[in-house]
Amino acid sequence: MKDFAGTPGTLTALALRIAQFLFAAASIASMATTSSFFNFTAFCYLIASMGLQVIWSFGLALLDAYALVRRQALHNQIMVSLFVIGDWVTATLSLAAASASGGITVLYFHDLGECTIGTECQKYQLSVAFAFLSWFTVFVSSLIMFWLLAAG
Amino acid sequence: MKDFAGTPGTLTALALRIAQFLFAAASIASMATTSSFFNFTAFCYLIASMGLQVIWSFGLALLDAYALVRRQALHNQIMVSLFVIGDWVTATLSLAAASASGGITVLYFHDLGECTIGTECQKYQLSVAFAFLSWFTVFVSSLIMFWLLAAG
Repeated sequence: MKDFAGTPGTLTALALRIAQFLFAAASIASMATTSSFFNFTAFCYLIASMGLQVIWSFGLALLDAYALVRRQALHNQIMVSLFVIGDWVTATLSLAAASASGGITVLYFHDLGECTIGTECQKYQLSVAFAFLSWFTVFVSSLIMFWLLAAG
Repeated sequence: MKDFAGTPGTLTALALRIAQFLFAAASIASMATTSSFFNFTAFCYLIASMGLQVIWSFGLALLDAYALVRRQALHNQIMVSLFVIGDWVTATLSLAAASASGGITVLYFHDLGECTIGTECQKYQLSVAFAFLSWFTVFVSSLIMFWLLAAG
């Protein structure tokens, strides 16, 4: 398999995984500290989806770190296939969750006038912003993985 | 370039493009015939995104039909790169629009009790469902295109 920046076991891949993990964790932290998120299905879905993202990215970050320490590329066809499937599933779920929550945030902030629950509103916005950042980094990872798989 | 089902200029590709076009058009028709969609930013965004999808899919359907009639595969590296970028952009926009609208539909149907604007509600749901179907078919197309580009 070809070897380029971002493939499993490289420093770029590790940095991307850590960024995904941190953004997803920040999104959960920001959302979970509001007092009314459980009234909104989309916000609960965001927490669930970001939770999955945190687990997945943390696992792959550990794997990348292990490969870096052992100086060994993880370019096994079966493993890369698994990475591709996992990355695509989490990327799709993250984008859907971020967009659904973003839609509701815009509804409350823009369409129905102003948001009347004070600091809660900023936390919702912050959480959605972190979710989009997390999605973007997973999206980059998933493109690299898919390219690696297809290019053989 | 390799030749498999779904690559530009094949019958599968044409069928996928027609499905994308029809689903996106159905989504717009269902949403645009409601009387209050313009009060919701997400629903306006859905119409804009599905409008882009209709134009893109219709254009590529014509191109595929032309290639089928002329019995000539469209496997030029530059053209496939353009198809990949266009497919990815429209797929991402479609998923984001469908999810944002879906989030608001769930908010009104489930979180805030029942939807009180009668047949309008069913039209919103129908529009979101068609948008997700359209996204799914673009997603399949974009995966095929990306694979074709990467596999060279």
